[in-house]
Amino acid sequence: MFEFKVKKEEGFSRTGILKTPNGLIKTPVFMPVGTKATVKTLSQKDLKTLGAQIILANTYHLFLRPGEKLVKKMGGLHKWINWDGPILTDSGGYQVFSLSQEKGFTKNTKFKTKVKIDDKGVMFNSHLDGSKHYFTPKKAIKIQEDLNADIVMAFDECAPADSSKKYFKEAMERTHKWLIDCKKSHKSSKQALFGIVQGGLYKDLREESAKFVNAQGLPGNAIGGLSVGESKGQMYDMLDVTIPHLDKNKPRYLMGVGTPEDILEAVERGVDMFDCVHPTRMARHGSFWDLTGRYSITNAKFKYDKSPLQKDCKCETCQNYSKSYLRHLIFEKEILGLRLMSIHNLHFLLELMRNIRENIDKGSFKKFKREFLKKFKK
Amino acid sequence: MFEFKVKKEEGFSRTGILKTPNGLIKTPVFMPVGTKATVKTLSQKDLKTLGAQIILANTYHLFLRPGEKLVKKMGGLHKWINWDGPILTDSGGYQVFSLSQEKGFTKNTKFKTKVKIDDKGVMFNSHLDGSKHYFTPKKAIKIQEDLNADIVMAFDECAPADSSKKYFKEAMERTHKWLIDCKKSHKSSKQALFGIVQGGLYKDLREESAKFVNAQGLPGNAIGGLSVGESKGQMYDMLDVTIPHLDKNKPRYLMGVGTPEDILEAVERGVDMFDCVHPTRMARHGSFWDLTGRYSITNAKFKYDKSPLQKDCKCETCQNYSKSYLRHLIFEKEILGLRLMSIHNLHFLLELMRNIRENIDKGSFKKFKREFLKKFKK
Repeated sequence: MFEFKVKKEEGFSRTGILKTPNGLIKTPVFMPVGTKATVKTLSQKDLKTLGAQIILANTYHLFLRPGEKLVKKMGGLHKWINWDGPILTDSGGYQVFSLSQEKGFTKNTKFKTKVKIDDKGVMFNSHLDGSKHYFTPKKAIKIQEDLNADIVMAFDECAPADSSKKYFKEAMERTHKWLIDCKKSHKSSKQALFGIVQGGLYKDLREESAKFVNAQGLPGNAIGGLSVGESKGQMYDMLDVTIPHLDKNKPRYLMGVGTPEDILEAVERGVDMFDCVHPTRMARHGSFWDLTGRYSITNAKFKYDKSPLQKDCKCETCQNYSKSYLRHLIFEKEILGLRLMSIHNLHFLLELMRNIRENIDKGSFKKFKREFLKKFKK
Repeated sequence: MFEFKVKKEEGFSRTGILKTPNGLIKTPVFMPVGTKATVKTLSQKDLKTLGAQIILANTYHLFLRPGEKLVKKMGGLHKWINWDGPILTDSGGYQVFSLSQEKGFTKNTKFKTKVKIDDKGVMFNSHLDGSKHYFTPKKAIKIQEDLNADIVMAFDECAPADSSKKYFKEAMERTHKWLIDCKKSHKSSKQALFGIVQGGLYKDLREESAKFVNAQGLPGNAIGGLSVGESKGQMYDMLDVTIPHLDKNKPRYLMGVGTPEDILEAVERGVDMFDCVHPTRMARHGSFWDLTGRYSITNAKFKYDKSPLQKDCKCETCQNYSKSYLRHLIFEKEILGLRLMSIHNLHFLLELMRNIRENIDKGSFKKFKREFLKKFKK
């Protein structure tokens, strides 16, 4: 039911086709994030119109509310949310650690939350109501089975960026052990399990992790724990040491990335899949991209600007509305503004992916990337 | 440029065509409210898809932000918001009195707001920043001219529901005087000015006001100051004494109404135009209509409900999503939920208007109304 075929290569970058039970995915692909089973502000029809091929949902959030059992009872995620394309669910690991860190009262919650890790799994408190839960690799797989996504992720430990090398090594080893547990628990032939490379910003750990994860022979390999505050150079360095150890006949998924420049750099290094809340989150904060960089619509210079967010852009927002009107909507916190900005930013990134694929196929990716980044101010 | 033709009559109810510079309006009509130049959660394309014929915008809100001068500079409301159908703007009177009442700190604002009325106009503080403004009939007309709507409303005083009869009479007389002022200031042949009947819940005042407003020979007559907390019986009584005095060859507009039952009762009494934030506001609070009444999607009984909000409904929401998924979205305060509920409720009301028109044309309105209200629990 799953198959990945590399179509064209240019250097390390490549186009490919990933076959899933709910359709084909052309890679490199950007996957919009539907945290709570909705890509914020957009309908599933909007996502189709934008050309989204696959969307993400978050296991941690859906486990807490409405609960994976409800989703299962409603026929799984696809039926429940009425999305007939592929879906990927993360394992909940990232949120368990980021939303429930042992910091007493966090900014995300009024409850005292804790995370207690042992080799079998993680005890954590819900950021919503403080309720106590225990995730194991087996449980993370079972929840994802109930959610019924096409691609499911192994349960991993995403260590805080300021951890010691010793701790990063421990967390990586636990992640490897959990990967074995996930493989054992994973039964569904309709779901592809991807492993996750960890190892912080340490080349030797990343290499070790990449080799271990790759050796599991899973249908896809992911790179986790990046884009968490390190410099761009550090991220690219980690990709450079990781990717050569990941089977070139399997899709490579860089988790939580990102921005146009990071996507271009990662594609050049051989990454096939991306996801990030960035385009929709920055939209809700009034920021948008055009081919020259990133801007804030609240800037006074757009007050009387009758032009669209991006010249010649084909998205619904740019075809219909001026910067002046969008600026007003964002100032007034009007939902239409959040939606129109989200549509543009997702269109921008999905269009970038289309251009990336087209240029790799034509053998002109390096040139495309160079010219794109020359105009695009980081 | 403006013309109203009654097409069919059944008792006092009638269908008609109102011609405006931006298109024809079939009456009876419900006008979705776009307070700050956006019908909350919906795009102008969505409104077209739903069959909205004309939309409203609020003078008070747009005067404060972004300012009518900006809208004028951008080519007027139609161009600025990209809506090529008719638009109606209110005069700001209602908001001046409801948002800036002399109650010290109100729940709407952290600023001490005041309203000071004299025969020439109203001094008030902005509910946004406490800034002081003075509205006169002339100014209300000038702002609406800058906004460039097709139908503009006279500046009126909407007295608080608990005022004495003496005060209601004073406010009515001031409203009449201001109507004369508005007529004098109103120059644009591309805008139709409607007068507003006031008079609280006093039959003699309502009659007097209806006669006065009607005598101005304006292209349309509105009934204000209702649906502000009185009983349904009181509202219908006021319509009964008002409408016979309003020229039957002019459209009659009942401001701020409303619910399916009120619309049906008012149509039966000869009303042609309605506006209300109710369908979109109740949507954002998770409530919806079907043909049996009003429900809250957060009700536990909908948790596993795979059916649409309304059986056989043709709206985008009902064609694509289950109550179970909508309930989850509303619980999570997800914007998609607010939008999908708004789409359904507006579709419900606009479909009701289509059925009302069809049945008046066929001479079966009374029967339709009786059967609708038999099933629909108020």
